[in-house]
Amino acid sequence: MMNEFELIQRLTASLPAHPEVLVGPGDDCAVLEAGLLDRVLLFKTDAVVEGIHFTPDTAPERIGHKALGRCLSDIAAMAGTPTAALVTAALPRRFEVGRVDGIYAGLKALAQRHHVAIVGGETTTNPAGLLLSVALLGWAPRNKTILRSGAKPGDAIFVSGDLGGSLAGKHLDFEPRLDEARWLARHFPIHSMIDLSDGLAGDLRHILKASGVGAELLAAAVPISRAARRAARESSTAKPPLVAALTDGEDFELLFTLPSRHAVPLLDSWKAQFPHTRLTCIGKITSTEGLTLRDKHGARPLTAHGYVHFA
Amino acid sequence: MMNEFELIQRLTASLPAHPEVLVGPGDDCAVLEAGLLDRVLLFKTDAVVEGIHFTPDTAPERIGHKALGRCLSDIAAMAGTPTAALVTAALPRRFEVGRVDGIYAGLKALAQRHHVAIVGGETTTNPAGLLLSVALLGWAPRNKTILRSGAKPGDAIFVSGDLGGSLAGKHLDFEPRLDEARWLARHFPIHSMIDLSDGLAGDLRHILKASGVGAELLAAAVPISRAARRAARESSTAKPPLVAALTDGEDFELLFTLPSRHAVPLLDSWKAQFPHTRLTCIGKITSTEGLTLRDKHGARPLTAHGYVHFA
Repeated sequence: MMNEFELIQRLTASLPAHPEVLVGPGDDCAVLEAGLLDRVLLFKTDAVVEGIHFTPDTAPERIGHKALGRCLSDIAAMAGTPTAALVTAALPRRFEVGRVDGIYAGLKALAQRHHVAIVGGETTTNPAGLLLSVALLGWAPRNKTILRSGAKPGDAIFVSGDLGGSLAGKHLDFEPRLDEARWLARHFPIHSMIDLSDGLAGDLRHILKASGVGAELLAAAVPISRAARRAARESSTAKPPLVAALTDGEDFELLFTLPSRHAVPLLDSWKAQFPHTRLTCIGKITSTEGLTLRDKHGARPLTAHGYVHFA
Repeated sequence: MMNEFELIQRLTASLPAHPEVLVGPGDDCAVLEAGLLDRVLLFKTDAVVEGIHFTPDTAPERIGHKALGRCLSDIAAMAGTPTAALVTAALPRRFEVGRVDGIYAGLKALAQRHHVAIVGGETTTNPAGLLLSVALLGWAPRNKTILRSGAKPGDAIFVSGDLGGSLAGKHLDFEPRLDEARWLARHFPIHSMIDLSDGLAGDLRHILKASGVGAELLAAAVPISRAARRAARESSTAKPPLVAALTDGEDFELLFTLPSRHAVPLLDSWKAQFPHTRLTCIGKITSTEGLTLRDKHGARPLTAHGYVHFA
């Protein structure tokens, strides 16, 4: 069976070129020419499904928050400004109106906070359960669009926030890093950026592949969340905290690279600007392809699926 | 239980105003300000679901065609030009790759014919069955956007093509009326337009409600499809052909109004331009609210759900 990435690659292969398409499939958002001197259009869709991205017991407001938040996080990954969203709600044959009201309340609250207009909606029936699909438009400054493909050997690799254990709650109430991303793009020469949805190791691989480079991560530097530490303490079958931070999905933090000479000024300015959000330098981009993790025992490769081989 | 329209109205009520939103929920597409002198953005999503919009036996190419075609038809209803689409495929846990390839082949063929770029896709799992959601962007000339709300008393009401019986096949292989709609908008003062998805009576009601007017339809003028006539001949439980033409959904034809003095010139020019597609004047807009049907027995109201009361 194919995985999602293989399937998408297969489906989007051999698409005809189009003069208005600046960036097609394969980055956080599509980037489209709109005929404006100063900016370009960003276009993104994302769906959440009951039983996969939330459960029947999830508070409806948090479902709505997550559905829109995921798309906003992709706009953030390109340092864009979201403007308008369309919401498709595919509902089971029997549903409580109160649940749908709650979902929209969660959507609207997040939309308002980021000045996003909800410009329409559609409901349809989905026999299995609830599915929400959000389509989002935004703008990014022309010539400053930050792609996955710009990482260069010598770049320092940074990540916002703490990683791992998102399933304990963060995946339902994270705040998309829109302000942080725009601030970064305005003040520093960011070479590449992505939002963390598949896990640090997996998403870093997307940058490495798109940029044709490699990376070395410092095990001791990876910021591990309390939730990941707690899970490891409380269950002997949970992932070790570092593995959780490297491979758990849905952190919705920013992962980006920039020339290493900017690393210290960046850390200083960030601390002044966003005193409550951690920013960590976790490694560097290398010209040798592949992803390695360095700890006190030396450097070892991370495997294809993001999991660490323990010697 | 609420119907779809009541639910959408409830969900999209009390949305905050936004400076970039020219037309929000309630028309065929959302219309957005893009800062361009000559044009505005159109934004639309639409989903098709297995068991509702197609069956497990439907040829995959036709599923893809329908999923994109429905969105294109909404762009047509605003006389717009579509440019870029994103496709979300929610797949059952077990699926044949060949089926998904077929769906994309149908999507791509239609997209290419109308110069639409497919700029990305997402796949996710949907335990119940296949669901496809398409998000579409397009452009419409500024100051010429054709809404549902522009119908005026005295307007002649026109419809393209033949109506009813779409389930026999047309709903899977209709060609969205993009060229026809743009031609109409360029050459005639179209007051209001909608594409037929809910059935002639239902969609005309959307125009009447948005415009605050009424209408009288001429029963003898309604263009009835062969499929609707055949169904009525072959089964005694099928709808009478006129009822099918008034109430069957998914015709994906254009329904529009314009000042009646343009009716004859329009019919002449249309015949020269689109010789293979019927265009029919089926009635007129009235200042009295409500929708009536006139036949040899006189005029009688059509009921709220589009069905004709037979005396």
